[in-house]
Amino acid sequence: MYFSRIVIFGVGLIGGSIGLAVKKRRIAGTVIGVSDDPESLNAALERHAIDFAAANLDEGLNTKHPAAVRQSETGSPVLSLQPEAELIVVAVPVSLVPDVVWQAASAVKTGGNYRNVLITDVGSTKETICSRFESATLPNGCRFIGSHPIAGKETSGVQNADADLFENRLAVVTPTSSARDRDIGSLIRFWRSLGSVAASMSPAEHDRILARTSHLPHLLSALLADRLQMQDVRYTGPGYHSTTRLASGLPEMWRDIVSHNTESILEAIRDYEHALRNLREKIESGDWEAVEQFLEHAKRNRDGLTGSSRS
Amino acid sequence: MYFSRIVIFGVGLIGGSIGLAVKKRRIAGTVIGVSDDPESLNAALERHAIDFAAANLDEGLNTKHPAAVRQSETGSPVLSLQPEAELIVVAVPVSLVPDVVWQAASAVKTGGNYRNVLITDVGSTKETICSRFESATLPNGCRFIGSHPIAGKETSGVQNADADLFENRLAVVTPTSSARDRDIGSLIRFWRSLGSVAASMSPAEHDRILARTSHLPHLLSALLADRLQMQDVRYTGPGYHSTTRLASGLPEMWRDIVSHNTESILEAIRDYEHALRNLREKIESGDWEAVEQFLEHAKRNRDGLTGSSRS
Repeated sequence: MYFSRIVIFGVGLIGGSIGLAVKKRRIAGTVIGVSDDPESLNAALERHAIDFAAANLDEGLNTKHPAAVRQSETGSPVLSLQPEAELIVVAVPVSLVPDVVWQAASAVKTGGNYRNVLITDVGSTKETICSRFESATLPNGCRFIGSHPIAGKETSGVQNADADLFENRLAVVTPTSSARDRDIGSLIRFWRSLGSVAASMSPAEHDRILARTSHLPHLLSALLADRLQMQDVRYTGPGYHSTTRLASGLPEMWRDIVSHNTESILEAIRDYEHALRNLREKIESGDWEAVEQFLEHAKRNRDGLTGSSRS
Repeated sequence: MYFSRIVIFGVGLIGGSIGLAVKKRRIAGTVIGVSDDPESLNAALERHAIDFAAANLDEGLNTKHPAAVRQSETGSPVLSLQPEAELIVVAVPVSLVPDVVWQAASAVKTGGNYRNVLITDVGSTKETICSRFESATLPNGCRFIGSHPIAGKETSGVQNADADLFENRLAVVTPTSSARDRDIGSLIRFWRSLGSVAASMSPAEHDRILARTSHLPHLLSALLADRLQMQDVRYTGPGYHSTTRLASGLPEMWRDIVSHNTESILEAIRDYEHALRNLREKIESGDWEAVEQFLEHAKRNRDGLTGSSRS
């Protein structure tokens, strides 16, 4: 698997980690980072997460960079000019993805030797994004397929980026019915080449599942942290810290996720509210047998995860 | 701070960690482990968490063990006979604590050279335990003061014990009005000598605070794990794992905690239910500004904890 050039729009934690992983695993000759934030670009260059920095898409896509390191068949690096962008990764908050995808496709100059440009994103919700491109034809022959690498940290920014962030993590690819099989295959191979386990499903199915496994846990964690009373701080232990770890996520990013996956998240919240009421009633009635059975079932479920490589 | 002999009843994660910490820091000449589970005792001996093992309290308290290592003033170890037990730590689930405390006090033989026997526990709830001893006089001049080291892991058993488990963690001592100042001071110095930060408060205040900072988080974490659907397992990431980590705790231990701190836990659950309903209504009405404000407040609270040594 080899891309001549990968353009990453947005060099935060995820974009920066993709750059580091691509370079560590020599998946692309050249990695171009695009961002309107000069500080992030400088930090990404310093961390060697990108080879070249550009302040906007036109510059990032259309500047000819001199050196692309390609691994030759004998194993020694060969320098070559690689002016075309074959993969554009849009690593920005979900509400910005559709516009950036459109701008990226528009900025591709077909007069040069661009061909076969695939665009993907890394957003945590997929339905609202992918539906925008299901029946639309992007300019310049570009195609979009959504991705969601299920990896992250409670920290943000390229300074926390990690070349192994995707290793053994699941990356979900969410093609719509109009996607080409070859593009789906390329994208799956891309995530696998970063160390991920890749899966493919519809955007809607992705959003229903992630509401339960990611978005609800985030909101529950944030709500617990939200209720923290200042005089209780010193009485928090490692359990409290673990349970509220997600609350340190970026508010504007999670606002976007909630507003883009509203129905599935509401369904997950209502289910949890119902279960919490049931548990409270068991405690109110002093049904300790039922409380213990609940705790046992929860422990079995949780212990079952520990065997997985993603614990 | 020095105890000639410390008897630990119950050599699981906490009892075993106390043994390891006491021995690492040379706080006592001899550590005796008492348990009716021979496997735990053997594991505790193998890990050097205890010096001697006893199958029951009478044997543990009244057998004269030959060697107690005492640090002399010149720093070299001195062997001496130390037949008296000065501190008994009852490290069993909260529902068993009162009976074990009573049995321990009864097993103390005053005909020998026992004197000044202080008994404590390590239970996560304090009111129901401590109220049993507030106006009662224990046999043989023994006194009880409750303790709760706010430290732990999602694993259990002496095989997971850790000599540094209490380091920089809070240990709460919960004397009742009848406790002697000298005993309170001894117990606080004991926890400090294990590396803990020690605090003192009433059993009732302890229980109200811990319902919010420990018991509620545990139940929320368990409830999330309880709802896990098997087909969703592979879509859980590090965030889900962190938020549900507590669910691996021992069901019988947590059943006890819930049944011993029922009112404060119910109050914390009702408060959380109310907050969850409010959050759902914000999402239902599409008030993304309010959702973002909530996420920001939660992040500020959570980020404020990271500076503490207990994160």
